[in-house]
Amino acid sequence: MPTLHNNPQLNKNGELQHLLTIEGLKKSHIDHILDTASSFVGISDREVKKVPLMRGKSVFNLFFENSTRTRTTFEIASKRLSADVINLNIQASSTTKGESLLDTIDNLAAMHADMFVVRHAQSGAPYMIAQHLNRTRSDVHVVNAGDGRHAHPTQGLLDMYTIRHYKKDFTNLRVAIVGDILHSRVARSDIHALTTLGVPEVRAIGPHTLLPGGLEQMGVRTFTNMDEGLKDVDVIIMLRLQNERMSGALLPSAQEYFKSYGLTPERLALAKPDAIVMHPGPMNRGVEIDSAVADGAQAVILPQVTFGIAVRMAVMSILAGTHA
Amino acid sequence: MPTLHNNPQLNKNGELQHLLTIEGLKKSHIDHILDTASSFVGISDREVKKVPLMRGKSVFNLFFENSTRTRTTFEIASKRLSADVINLNIQASSTTKGESLLDTIDNLAAMHADMFVVRHAQSGAPYMIAQHLNRTRSDVHVVNAGDGRHAHPTQGLLDMYTIRHYKKDFTNLRVAIVGDILHSRVARSDIHALTTLGVPEVRAIGPHTLLPGGLEQMGVRTFTNMDEGLKDVDVIIMLRLQNERMSGALLPSAQEYFKSYGLTPERLALAKPDAIVMHPGPMNRGVEIDSAVADGAQAVILPQVTFGIAVRMAVMSILAGTHA
Amino acid sequence: MPTLHNNPQLNKNGELQHLLTIEGLKKSHIDHILDTASSFVGISDREVKKVPLMRGKSVFNLFFENSTRTRTTFEIASKRLSADVINLNIQASSTTKGESLLDTIDNLAAMHADMFVVRHAQSGAPYMIAQHLNRTRSDVHVVNAGDGRHAHPTQGLLDMYTIRHYKKDFTNLRVAIVGDILHSRVARSDIHALTTLGVPEVRAIGPHTLLPGGLEQMGVRTFTNMDEGLKDVDVIIMLRLQNERMSGALLPSAQEYFKSYGLTPERLALAKPDAIVMHPGPMNRGVEIDSAVADGAQAVILPQVTFGIAVRMAVMSILAGTHA
Repeated sequence: MPTLHNNPQLNKNGELQHLLTIEGLKKSHIDHILDTASSFVGISDREVKKVPLMRGKSVFNLFFENSTRTRTTFEIASKRLSADVINLNIQASSTTKGESLLDTIDNLAAMHADMFVVRHAQSGAPYMIAQHLNRTRSDVHVVNAGDGRHAHPTQGLLDMYTIRHYKKDFTNLRVAIVGDILHSRVARSDIHALTTLGVPEVRAIGPHTLLPGGLEQMGVRTFTNMDEGLKDVDVIIMLRLQNERMSGALLPSAQEYFKSYGLTPERLALAKPDAIVMHPGPMNRGVEIDSAVADGAQAVILPQVTFGIAVRMAVMSILAGTHA
Repeated sequence: MPTLHNNPQLNKNGELQHLLTIEGLKKSHIDHILDTASSFVGISDREVKKVPLMRGKSVFNLFFENSTRTRTTFEIASKRLSADVINLNIQASSTTKGESLLDTIDNLAAMHADMFVVRHAQSGAPYMIAQHLNRTRSDVHVVNAGDGRHAHPTQGLLDMYTIRHYKKDFTNLRVAIVGDILHSRVARSDIHALTTLGVPEVRAIGPHTLLPGGLEQMGVRTFTNMDEGLKDVDVIIMLRLQNERMSGALLPSAQEYFKSYGLTPERLALAKPDAIVMHPGPMNRGVEIDSAVADGAQAVILPQVTFGIAVRMAVMSILAGTHA
Repeated sequence: MPTLHNNPQLNKNGELQHLLTIEGLKKSHIDHILDTASSFVGISDREVKKVPLMRGKSVFNLFFENSTRTRTTFEIASKRLSADVINLNIQASSTTKGESLLDTIDNLAAMHADMFVVRHAQSGAPYMIAQHLNRTRSDVHVVNAGDGRHAHPTQGLLDMYTIRHYKKDFTNLRVAIVGDILHSRVARSDIHALTTLGVPEVRAIGPHTLLPGGLEQMGVRTFTNMDEGLKDVDVIIMLRLQNERMSGALLPSAQEYFKSYGLTPERLALAKPDAIVMHPGPMNRGVEIDSAVADGAQAVILPQVTFGIAVRMAVMSILAGTHA
């Protein structure tokens, strides 16, 4: 894994060249993205939901791992920026002909790609691509759309946008992240962003088996008892419980999990009365979240999706250098 | 199945909000769609085959059941209206992650979708989606692109367009629908449309096992003898015999079927001399239709396809409220 | 296979109606394509990489055989010409419903397609489609994107563009094509083009089992010894060794192949000092080409890709009649 000393996502002036991870971003980077996103939120309500900022630019959605949902959000964001989008499902493609990942990248770059949105099951794949492009084609940009367990920075950024929208000020918040912290790229991205933005108290709640080591060193308080962890928080970020965990050795069963870590109306009442409930989707209703909460007045799960389009438009237009 | 008393496709002013079924549409609704389509037929012959009516609108092709052919017609219609189109093959997507259908819809609506074109193997799925959206996001529209055995309204409408084009007046026609009426969503849509438009005599021709009960109550005359049924008709709508029926218990064999219900030149001669032959495609040549008829002078099967694009453009632009 | 006497790709004035094969094209046809491509090379470097030449035209990518790489190049070329592109992966589509190839073509043509880009495992399939359209819809154009072992004309044309770019004059060149000539549609297209453009010496290098009969009649010198074949050549066109050959009866092993026919720096030194190295991609590094050569100063493999987009834009706009 690359270290911060050698962060390929910033150019030598410290500007964003790629978006690979929230780790190592300054508050000013995040603020700039959120401010730019703010200017795009209104566009989606207009009669014509497009701006010509990336007209004639070619965006390649390189999905080495299937994720229709994430791919769709980037496809919409690209089209609303008027870019041309090419979707490539790479399992079915030339890697099966034995071409190496970097040869594929070189080829697509030679077709005058402007941006690669990369989803890969292996942590670090988007880094390797970005480092390679920095050496060979510094005009091409990479957005990490999820790499292994490592990072999912646009999800982290849309979470920050949502919190800022509802809570205005980060510096007086208690934020709880609940669930499978161990396997979650969302949790990792969120913790980095919350810390950078000055949130004084970040909590991680989950069964011992799903809390990774090292959280305390990142300044996170850990709780295995959900009732204790939710007490007086302003923001609750629920994580999705992956199906493959449910039948695994780490957890007894989905029903047991819900009993201990499902967000019910009763548990939600332990948080502040104006606490908001977030979830990256797709939800497992009745596993990590009760439908009464998911559809309730404190849930901001659908606004997260809406803000997510604006945040992705912001990231893409900033990287492409087409947004001032 | 929803009843007519509670038709979610009309708003409280009786205007089309969604297109789910031809059942319950008034003649004025159908006329408006056909008249609008008429204005689009010419566009496809122009040098630049596009109009900006839906520029910046986002159309989602939600295909829960594979149908490249139908998906293509909607994709072309959308692009000729200048909409942005997102194709989602939902089997491969988040429903496999256990997300419910309505959660998927809520998510896509939160991305500011303007229209869902829905194909689903289950009868009623587009209704459920439309009813949900009527409660939550009344600015989003649904077009049923085929649900189970129930309805395929744009196919029914393009059939009406084709008949009107060649026959001008519906009120003096004899129309025969031939084949697997029982399993055909096309037959169902056509019967409703023909009746609404004032066709005095609709006939259904097929083996007893493939004629559903209740046709007589819908005002349809049934025939198991094809020669009798074709006598003096103005329009013959052939249905596709599904492969799965051919080897099933309902039918002896494809050859036997052709012997009794295949449209040959000899049989066609029983109809009026200027009768037209229609087929929704894809054809099984030598099963339900002889190639000499399919490629003959009375076949209007390819014009149906051409009109189908214009009809879909009409439906979409009327629903989107962008066509006066 | 169609003969030259009945070449469906030229209309009665000898103008290109379809692009099926380089065989039978005159030097003036090829020059016109390369000159037009030259005007498009600059577009890809511009801020807005689009021209409106095919705005409102509908291009159908009909891929009966999977090739993400080739499909992508045509998709990009179409979008940079502002055409609407519809991707159809036909295995999964209506041919599985038993519709014949020509019925599928008729249907898509009835949707007012302007151009079909056809990839098919069977030699001659694009011919059959072109001949059918010449009879039925002479305003629709076909581009062969690879048919069986037969032809891959846009690859041949981009190879010619690349050679012209680096060597200016064809009439004083020695060009070597190395590898599996027998199964290569690229080799076939290249040999025709090189001969037509006046290259005085074309060489084919490969193991006896992979050199087809009849090369000498085409004016090609054959070599089974690579060192002899490369001596003093100006251009080396390496072919991809198909995986399926490697384990087959025609060849001992990939390692053995590399020992005899892999392009190493030592072997490259036998060619002229300014010789260029080409490869259609995707490369098998260490099988037909050494990485030191693939990434070396004489390789023009990535420029081939870049020129390929311009060449495809040229072919499409010439066929569509939108380029003067």
